[in-house]
Amino acid sequence: MSKILRVNMTDLTTKFEDVPDKYRLMGGRGLTSAITCDEVPPTCHPLGPNNKVTFATGIVTGTNAPTSGRISVGGKSPLTGTIKEANSGGMAGQKLARLGIKALIVEGQPKEKGKFWLLKVDKDGAQLMPADDFVGKGLYETYPQLFKKFGEKIAILGIGTAGERLMSMAGVCVNDPENRPSRYAGRGGIGAVMGSKGIKAIILDDESGPGVAIANKEVFDAGRKKLVAALQEHAITKPGGALNTYGTAVLVNIINEVGAFPTRNFSDGRFEGANKISGETINETCKKRGGVGMTGHSCSPGCIIKCSNVYPKPDGTELVSVQEYESVWSLGANCGIDSLDVTGELIRLCNDYGVDTIESGVTIGVAMEAGLAKFGDSKKAIELMHEIGKGTPLGHILGNGAAVTARVFGVVRCPTTKGQGMPAYEPRAIKGIGVIYATSNMGADHTSGYTIAPEVLGVSGKVDQFDINKADLARHFQNATAYLFDSSGHCLFIAFAVLDSSSGLEGVVEECNGVLGTNWTVDDVVQMGSKIVERERAFNEAAGFTKVDDRLPEFMNYEKLPPHNVTFDVPDEVLDKVYSP
Amino acid sequence: MSKILRVNMTDLTTKFEDVPDKYRLMGGRGLTSAITCDEVPPTCHPLGPNNKVTFATGIVTGTNAPTSGRISVGGKSPLTGTIKEANSGGMAGQKLARLGIKALIVEGQPKEKGKFWLLKVDKDGAQLMPADDFVGKGLYETYPQLFKKFGEKIAILGIGTAGERLMSMAGVCVNDPENRPSRYAGRGGIGAVMGSKGIKAIILDDESGPGVAIANKEVFDAGRKKLVAALQEHAITKPGGALNTYGTAVLVNIINEVGAFPTRNFSDGRFEGANKISGETINETCKKRGGVGMTGHSCSPGCIIKCSNVYPKPDGTELVSVQEYESVWSLGANCGIDSLDVTGELIRLCNDYGVDTIESGVTIGVAMEAGLAKFGDSKKAIELMHEIGKGTPLGHILGNGAAVTARVFGVVRCPTTKGQGMPAYEPRAIKGIGVIYATSNMGADHTSGYTIAPEVLGVSGKVDQFDINKADLARHFQNATAYLFDSSGHCLFIAFAVLDSSSGLEGVVEECNGVLGTNWTVDDVVQMGSKIVERERAFNEAAGFTKVDDRLPEFMNYEKLPPHNVTFDVPDEVLDKVYSP
Repeated sequence: MSKILRVNMTDLTTKFEDVPDKYRLMGGRGLTSAITCDEVPPTCHPLGPNNKVTFATGIVTGTNAPTSGRISVGGKSPLTGTIKEANSGGMAGQKLARLGIKALIVEGQPKEKGKFWLLKVDKDGAQLMPADDFVGKGLYETYPQLFKKFGEKIAILGIGTAGERLMSMAGVCVNDPENRPSRYAGRGGIGAVMGSKGIKAIILDDESGPGVAIANKEVFDAGRKKLVAALQEHAITKPGGALNTYGTAVLVNIINEVGAFPTRNFSDGRFEGANKISGETINETCKKRGGVGMTGHSCSPGCIIKCSNVYPKPDGTELVSVQEYESVWSLGANCGIDSLDVTGELIRLCNDYGVDTIESGVTIGVAMEAGLAKFGDSKKAIELMHEIGKGTPLGHILGNGAAVTARVFGVVRCPTTKGQGMPAYEPRAIKGIGVIYATSNMGADHTSGYTIAPEVLGVSGKVDQFDINKADLARHFQNATAYLFDSSGHCLFIAFAVLDSSSGLEGVVEECNGVLGTNWTVDDVVQMGSKIVERERAFNEAAGFTKVDDRLPEFMNYEKLPPHNVTFDVPDEVLDKVYSP
Repeated sequence: MSKILRVNMTDLTTKFEDVPDKYRLMGGRGLTSAITCDEVPPTCHPLGPNNKVTFATGIVTGTNAPTSGRISVGGKSPLTGTIKEANSGGMAGQKLARLGIKALIVEGQPKEKGKFWLLKVDKDGAQLMPADDFVGKGLYETYPQLFKKFGEKIAILGIGTAGERLMSMAGVCVNDPENRPSRYAGRGGIGAVMGSKGIKAIILDDESGPGVAIANKEVFDAGRKKLVAALQEHAITKPGGALNTYGTAVLVNIINEVGAFPTRNFSDGRFEGANKISGETINETCKKRGGVGMTGHSCSPGCIIKCSNVYPKPDGTELVSVQEYESVWSLGANCGIDSLDVTGELIRLCNDYGVDTIESGVTIGVAMEAGLAKFGDSKKAIELMHEIGKGTPLGHILGNGAAVTARVFGVVRCPTTKGQGMPAYEPRAIKGIGVIYATSNMGADHTSGYTIAPEVLGVSGKVDQFDINKADLARHFQNATAYLFDSSGHCLFIAFAVLDSSSGLEGVVEECNGVLGTNWTVDDVVQMGSKIVERERAFNEAAGFTKVDDRLPEFMNYEKLPPHNVTFDVPDEVLDKVYSP
């Protein structure tokens, strides 16, 4: 039977608890959100003693279900003040699951300020030990030292100096299969919550762990096969398909073409330098420069999409893994920068300091708007990132994200909702994703309902990007996402395949049924997703959020976005219909 | 007939309009709040084109009613996001009133960023002119130049560099009778709103202005006499009384004695150095040092309380006017500083840069908590103030107030409500003022309901400072304040006298009846006050505020305050009863 591991940082104790019945059928985001709702006072200070950070594995994580190595990290967000779940690939999810731990809850707060601990978890239990040797160091220095100390086969969930300094764009870093500090539960500042608990890193050693029990192997295997088949057939997810060949940055030219590629702090929907930072160019450059450069890299064992990459320097040595769509956009187009060598360097710094690449790029865009640098000034952009690493006052401003940076410098054009920077889709030009940004429980978050699939990519049918009546679309996508992807433990990217394949969709549910011994239908699972979203929303309401918070920033209502010269014209009533149909 | 002057900064036009009937009987805060509610979208960005800043004179301002020279400045606050009114003494209220202007509304936003204008208003009309010569300069340099340019008999409503830079602790400065830049509509960042409109200063020349019409001179005079008598009889307000002799800082020893003098960022209720920054010490020092030093200074013509002071350097030359209770507390005890020479220098810098002294001191306290300086380090405190003046990144952090500073540096002990720094009364030790801080429409604001009068001073009876059932008290004080003081145009300090004298109270109402030709009773006026509060609250609700915002910061619920070792134990239900009795 899997357990809950509870770590109390006030008295520095660890305790294994039985999983209460109410959590037994939950996983991933469903479980982190339930624990947060049950145990965290909605009005507490996110960095105070009453917040908690919870790590939970997906339902099928740790099995051989394809592309299912996700780990969810949840709590009350210091960035948004809302409930938050961010999930990550990498090595941690499967190892935590195979240790028989369904959720790891960190609570309380050390009495001693500025003191950090390591939490080591293995088959024999959990222990806290001083992290003094690792405090104040970047993750490219910390991670190799931790692997040297604890062995190469562990997984690490760690925070960089940004998390130590309680910056609200700090993420939780997970090592990839080659042990790079490169995968992130990035959004919402959960790394700062971990920092506020005094945890520098969690070390997971699953050697001789109990593994994940599968209640009905036959059902599980049947489901797994269906999902594998769907993934291997779909043009976006198949081997040699769009994601595998070009990575997520395959979207750069596509979104730019439809005029929704946010450029220079959301002042344009098309970037003249888009192709220079596209997936096609990443692929070409990897081939041309050779060396370690590669696309089709896997971020997590058992992934059959393999959309990651390792980007080389001109001499073929490694610059960074990974140049994702969101990262090359935020640190590229959104800052007026059209060089992958520059975005690669900026991503490397994000990985080293331990911050979310999306929030970083949106923040630098706002800083450029404030006059701290000119759009397109790569040298200055890199300097601004270094400020975060140095922890200067300017670094503290930037490290707290776009909304704080805009507030500090009096910038009105601030592309955030509920305090979180917008991802790489202009809501004025793609209305459905705007409805998602506005109404998501997590602030502006494309992963909470990826309506880009039908609005641009023609996945699960095609809808007009400018149609404003998308309350139903947004609701359905949010509900489906909450369970099917965020709770099952699969990567969101299986969505492309399963939205177009009812067999693949059934496969996901059958995998869950196989693990849990349930008999759920697809409808049951979507219904459970809606319960997760509702529960999160109740937390937010108790924390003081209202429908006024379910709005895009005012400037998008009166500033016209080129090239389509559109404002965000979705009426408030449509936004309110997402939760009150 | 008085007029409304409307200034549009988008097209740089000015226009005089008739006063609509609905505004005819309003003044001061009642009028600024009504105009804000009618014309400003509650969800607009406070620094964007859709906010407006409104200046309104009190109902009796400009007459010879005693201590009635207040001017109200209102709009949506960039500090709190709520509706905001701040009022000030000094020379501007009476001159605006005597120019026949009931309200001055500034709207729109200049197309050209960083460009500023002067608005000159005299009997011939209003005109805008470039302010290029004055941009980027402190107010101790700007004001003398403006008086040189426009004559010594004008009044100025100006902003310092903090307002130009859109810092949300920027106030609107008013000259005193000797033309010092020393009086402030300080709270809530209305100076930043003025800055966002591109107005550096408003010049009021009332020579040959129409003056204030009095509908019923007899009623007015009778009322005026009653109020004068009450003021001249009460121990706190009479000539040679507490305020006149010691200034507002007479409260230092009193509030320290009851254990409610917030010390070192609200970590103690008693300051060992209190007496060194007390009103008694101000009085002694003025006498001892001589020169220009004086207590009993008047901030506005026609004031008969005269609680201001001019504080001398050791050589008798002027250091600053004025060392107020709130300022010597915030920049003194709250920062662990026990020197009036230091608080005087810090106040002088606040006046020069154009920022609220309360917010400044609370912010420096938070910065000290964050480790930027040690509590008690005067030199560092002065350096931090200079950062605001220099407009460095650190200055931008501090200039945006305590809540932003706490957010940027991850400080949990942040003494603010609705984003505004708390004044000089510890709510854990004086529960009623805590109820006011929590529920005021303006964020933590002692002037919205000065329950210290009964809770500590025994004015209008005496109630126990620790009694938690003060919803009714808070409601009555808020409602009475909104009209009797904040709308009539009288200084809040007449409250001490009129709360203890029913004749004095009637006098205030009769003065208003005299000016307006009405027949209101005291009850009518309190009822009108409740309508003002309700209207403001509706604005806040439409802006997204809920009862969750009517709470003190979480740390006050679990950190015990010495010397009484009390938490803020007023139940949420009591707080909610303020508006839902």
